Amino acid sequence: MIPDVKYHLHHTHNCWDQSIPPLVTVQSGDVVELETREASAGQLNPGSTSDALRSLDFSAVNPVTGPIAIDGAKPGDVVEVEILDVRPKDWGWTGVIPGFGLLADEYPEPYLKIWELNGDHAYFKPGIRIPLEPFCGMIGVAPAEPGALDMVPPRANGGNLDTRQLVKGSKVYLPVLYPGALLSLGDTHAAQGDGEVCGSAIEGPMVVKIRVNLLKDADLSSISYYTPGNQAPKQNQKGYYATTAYGPDLFEAVRQSIRGMIKHLTKNYDLTPHEAYALCSVAVDVRIGEVVNAPNWLVSAQLPLDIFEG
Amino acid sequence: MIPDVKYHLHHTHNCWDQSIPPLVTVQSGDVVELETREASAGQLNPGSTSDALRSLDFSAVNPVTGPIAIDGAKPGDVVEVEILDVRPKDWGWTGVIPGFGLLADEYPEPYLKIWELNGDHAYFKPGIRIPLEPFCGMIGVAPAEPGALDMVPPRANGGNLDTRQLVKGSKVYLPVLYPGALLSLGDTHAAQGDGEVCGSAIEGPMVVKIRVNLLKDADLSSISYYTPGNQAPKQNQKGYYATTAYGPDLFEAVRQSIRGMIKHLTKNYDLTPHEAYALCSVAVDVRIGEVVNAPNWLVSAQLPLDIFEG
Repeated sequence: MIPDVKYHLHHTHNCWDQSIPPLVTVQSGDVVELETREASAGQLNPGSTSDALRSLDFSAVNPVTGPIAIDGAKPGDVVEVEILDVRPKDWGWTGVIPGFGLLADEYPEPYLKIWELNGDHAYFKPGIRIPLEPFCGMIGVAPAEPGALDMVPPRANGGNLDTRQLVKGSKVYLPVLYPGALLSLGDTHAAQGDGEVCGSAIEGPMVVKIRVNLLKDADLSSISYYTPGNQAPKQNQKGYYATTAYGPDLFEAVRQSIRGMIKHLTKNYDLTPHEAYALCSVAVDVRIGEVVNAPNWLVSAQLPLDIFEG
Repeated sequence: MIPDVKYHLHHTHNCWDQSIPPLVTVQSGDVVELETREASAGQLNPGSTSDALRSLDFSAVNPVTGPIAIDGAKPGDVVEVEILDVRPKDWGWTGVIPGFGLLADEYPEPYLKIWELNGDHAYFKPGIRIPLEPFCGMIGVAPAEPGALDMVPPRANGGNLDTRQLVKGSKVYLPVLYPGALLSLGDTHAAQGDGEVCGSAIEGPMVVKIRVNLLKDADLSSISYYTPGNQAPKQNQKGYYATTAYGPDLFEAVRQSIRGMIKHLTKNYDLTPHEAYALCSVAVDVRIGEVVNAPNWLVSAQLPLDIFEG
């Protein structure tokens, strides 16, 4: 039995800082519902155009809802966050933001896609249908050190994990680094590929329901999680087309595999390079083949063909 | 209709070299069956112990069966290799080889697991059952440059791709770099995780059936493939436990995620560190969360819980 929602939160903050007072103090086992804002924190809306990305204020991005204090949580404990539900609303955005993303140097011009979300799917263009698998891009606790930490990089306190396996049914294990833990989450994504290569997924406001469990004196060597796995691979009918790349620098190989996929997409589908890059970010998985055949590691960018109708 | 097998090949070679004469010249569309040797080229057998890994001769490893010349193939063309079937025999091995692998510096001592393969699965230990998804670790063509290239790193001619998605039903696209293409394959793996972290998978001799198609004047910017996808994720019931790691060096983050998974496995299951490392190599997927949240990229080592019975 899942207990009823005990708290409903919507207030956000936009840095990690142990001095931010909690909105509420919960008991281990409590269920909390959180309204999240989309990652631009209102700088983008369903009527925005790509020009809005030229002046995006990065100090405001990735607001998270919270923090939630957990009664009795002390450093050395672990917070288990059960993701009970993640419900998108009716819109989202994906942007190629100047200066940001895996191929930032090659895509200086902005691009913005506003999505209309239709329950379990959304259309990128007519005939290109993306299945939605919503999750929280950001989930974290107050850092051990005082002061304000920015929201972009993931760190010891969690934060911007952007790991698309954290869907409904997952459990995330975070270390308590400060008394009360001070848990917050946000940056909700309706769909994302492994890598989030253009720097944004389908970003949108959502309603997230979690149960917070406190594990006393637990031993956690790194942020860990349980996931039921993504549904799209289970339902896949058409398979995947993949471009590979190899080399001694794994990060450069990832970049090269995405360049290859963008070339494939623009050649075989009616897509501009910016559109292809954004489509990679929401639907293509960058996967590692091997990291042992020195000096060349091999990666693949895998395009699920089910997204193409007909 | 798949035409009957036209050629059955079993002769191997152990370097990539355009001067190796083809065993046969096929026409586009021909079906060929190849017997592969396991990756040690007979240095290991079902009676071997880990001591055999101390003196492994790397100049002999990863023999491939072939080469197959394709009538009319010229540089600028592309070879499409349809993987019609990959059938393991009754045994395989997984080794932690001194000086080789993702954590070679931390695992100087050898470890060897000899597997008994039982059709669609194999037991690592009682209660740990690995589903088999056989594929060719190596598939490649003669290189553009003269001389002998060693078999370990993947390169422009393909070779040691070690990409576990290349199962039955896949199609691999390789560039023709030398007249006749001179296609060979081998290094057959009965199961592998993304990363092949200890440096070997379940290595075993197999029988591989392929159809070779020549695509004239095709435009291929990198080695690419079609895959139906792996079956294990589709059948997954129990989900995955994952350890994460982050940092500005993607390769180091991969190493750290596997260290975390080895710690998880040795703590929660009856496994030594060497066993856990080998189990990661055959069953754990290293997956990329994000490569955009500078300066920290985030990866996960994902353990499929279905491998644990009961």
